[in-house]
Amino acid sequence: MALIVQKFGGSSVADAQRVSHVAGIIANTYRQGNQVVVVVSAQGKTTDHLIAQAQEVNPNPSKRELDALMATGELASMALMALALERLGMPAISLSGWQAGIHTDSTHGAARVSRIDTERLRNELDKGNIVIVAGFQGVNKYEDITTLGRGGSDTSAVALAAALNADLCQIYTDVDGVYTADPRIVPNAIKIDEITYDEMLELASLGANVLHNRSVEMAKKYNVNLEVLSSMTGAEGTIVKEVTDVEKLLIKGVTKDVNIARISAMGVSDQPGIAFRLFSLLAKHKVSVDIILQSVGRDGTQDISFTVAAKDADEVVRLLEERKDTLGLKSVICDPNVAKVSIVGAGMETHAGVASKMFEALGEANINIQMIATSEIKISVLIAEEEANKAVAAIHRAFYGE
Amino acid sequence: MALIVQKFGGSSVADAQRVSHVAGIIANTYRQGNQVVVVVSAQGKTTDHLIAQAQEVNPNPSKRELDALMATGELASMALMALALERLGMPAISLSGWQAGIHTDSTHGAARVSRIDTERLRNELDKGNIVIVAGFQGVNKYEDITTLGRGGSDTSAVALAAALNADLCQIYTDVDGVYTADPRIVPNAIKIDEITYDEMLELASLGANVLHNRSVEMAKKYNVNLEVLSSMTGAEGTIVKEVTDVEKLLIKGVTKDVNIARISAMGVSDQPGIAFRLFSLLAKHKVSVDIILQSVGRDGTQDISFTVAAKDADEVVRLLEERKDTLGLKSVICDPNVAKVSIVGAGMETHAGVASKMFEALGEANINIQMIATSEIKISVLIAEEEANKAVAAIHRAFYGE
Repeated sequence: MALIVQKFGGSSVADAQRVSHVAGIIANTYRQGNQVVVVVSAQGKTTDHLIAQAQEVNPNPSKRELDALMATGELASMALMALALERLGMPAISLSGWQAGIHTDSTHGAARVSRIDTERLRNELDKGNIVIVAGFQGVNKYEDITTLGRGGSDTSAVALAAALNADLCQIYTDVDGVYTADPRIVPNAIKIDEITYDEMLELASLGANVLHNRSVEMAKKYNVNLEVLSSMTGAEGTIVKEVTDVEKLLIKGVTKDVNIARISAMGVSDQPGIAFRLFSLLAKHKVSVDIILQSVGRDGTQDISFTVAAKDADEVVRLLEERKDTLGLKSVICDPNVAKVSIVGAGMETHAGVASKMFEALGEANINIQMIATSEIKISVLIAEEEANKAVAAIHRAFYGE
Repeated sequence: MALIVQKFGGSSVADAQRVSHVAGIIANTYRQGNQVVVVVSAQGKTTDHLIAQAQEVNPNPSKRELDALMATGELASMALMALALERLGMPAISLSGWQAGIHTDSTHGAARVSRIDTERLRNELDKGNIVIVAGFQGVNKYEDITTLGRGGSDTSAVALAAALNADLCQIYTDVDGVYTADPRIVPNAIKIDEITYDEMLELASLGANVLHNRSVEMAKKYNVNLEVLSSMTGAEGTIVKEVTDVEKLLIKGVTKDVNIARISAMGVSDQPGIAFRLFSLLAKHKVSVDIILQSVGRDGTQDISFTVAAKDADEVVRLLEERKDTLGLKSVICDPNVAKVSIVGAGMETHAGVASKMFEALGEANINIQMIATSEIKISVLIAEEEANKAVAAIHRAFYGE
């Protein structure tokens, strides 16, 4: 008998029909002799609707009350799911975050799980119940309701799986797994059977948009086996775990991120410490810098280019323009029409030729590489935004064929 | 500094505009130097909508999960009200039933408040906060959410007022008080300034539909001063308390109840114990019997007539038909087209002529009285349903003039 945590997102429980469909999946898992803990999100657009309601009475809502309001979406979902399971003759019981013993810190709107008291959960499982837990929420030490922020229900599921030492944590979404590329760009993208936590973290941060990083980080920390799968197809999904068979797929995915901008600080005086001052200024303003390219000095000056999230670009330009003199730079250029295309795979470290194969594919497709960054399991290139899809397709073809 | 509990029903908080309007009422009460505890119902038709959602996934929902679902309506209301107060610059904090320490028994769907732990409530009031409590809900000893049944938010308000020893419990509704008759039937009905708990209980049970009996009973038990008033007009309402000045109004109201039926058991053998057997049969089936009229015996048989709630009439007829022989009765007649018209007033006991004045008014209006029942503070008559409004108007005219 295994203990399985299953998480269903908002689109999987959007209406009565889908709730009943998902109840069928849960009932099957239970009938196969497993103990089942289910985490549900709010139905469909409920969370957006609640935010709109709050805005109507108060355009600047306090985070404590907003959390109290937002948490109601998942509370309704959990009760409806329990009712749907009861209709199938299943023994089910719903528990809110606090009832399930999910304790958090007091950062309303983005709380961190501090501990889970599993006593009630264990009791209900021991009684033979399927336990439905409201995702996205917990309770702080003042007995106030908190929410866990974006992707919070994934975090709830992984935290519960860790606390209960579950055999598997299944994240049901509207895609049936992690693919080697976005199927909308590369129609023959391949579903990946297994991927490591680190690969998944790179893919998530690169915009693959399947799992939120916090839940993958937590899964890695507590060694929780994750599976990403679809509530629609019933097919096997993608398993995320510590070590996978690297021989199977050399690279796990090709992704693009267009929500970035390239900033160039031109004519920076070629003195020690200037780059440090520039980047510590950005750090002070909580701007994350990604790829950095420092040109070779010429005429006593150099150019420093780097990428930032598109939303931060305007602020970065303003900060640098204001401090042109103290930083000793001539001009600031911002190019928002860039994309970062990356390949990810734990196997590339031990296999020569991965980078050259990528660059060759881009060269043959006549795509100019502006900047390059590499890590142990990732190679990223910066290119023009309008060539991003072509680049992803070309690289995917080079590694996986047509 | 007084401590005031204010309760706002679903129509008073139906949308953002009304929530903001009600927040203004609360803010005024607070600004006058009072400590304020607010109890809110779910917005408008939310509760009906939640029941419909439950029915969609499970036509026979368990009461535990239905309670978990229903309680979300008041949770959303309380957070929105707190947000609306924050917008007005008021220090406000929302508390769910369990956060407010409202403990109940485990009768899901119709739980009784067993105790209120006021520690958190007191703390928040001491900090200067306006405390918004979700009505209609509590928590049982298993940490499961319970709801208090119909009129539950009134009960929450009175229970909190009793536990906090509040100076006043204001029940805001869509009418501005208790009237001597339904203003839709008697346009010149008079708003009553003060009414006793017992009078209010009689009026509520007779269909005046302003306060639920459970909350009035609780107010009487703990001597909580109630005020019924409108969230729209701002006018003074009706105070419900232990003793009122009986001289002011001899009778407090004229009401009608058309949701009843008259059952007649004809030709019952005139033996001792037959009436007892008949009514104990009905009691066993949880049917409440109201007015009873036993005819004088004739030919060794008698007729027994009584009234029951309209919803019970079919079952009563079936029960009696099935046991015709053992009960020794010839036939059963059911007349659903009857109405009970009543006058209520604690003063009538000490004032002769109240009953005759009522009967005279009915006689002049040419209305036939089928049955009569009296108590210390009430006289009820059974008449034909189509004459009910005419009867209410005629009686009201006799006591209060045109």
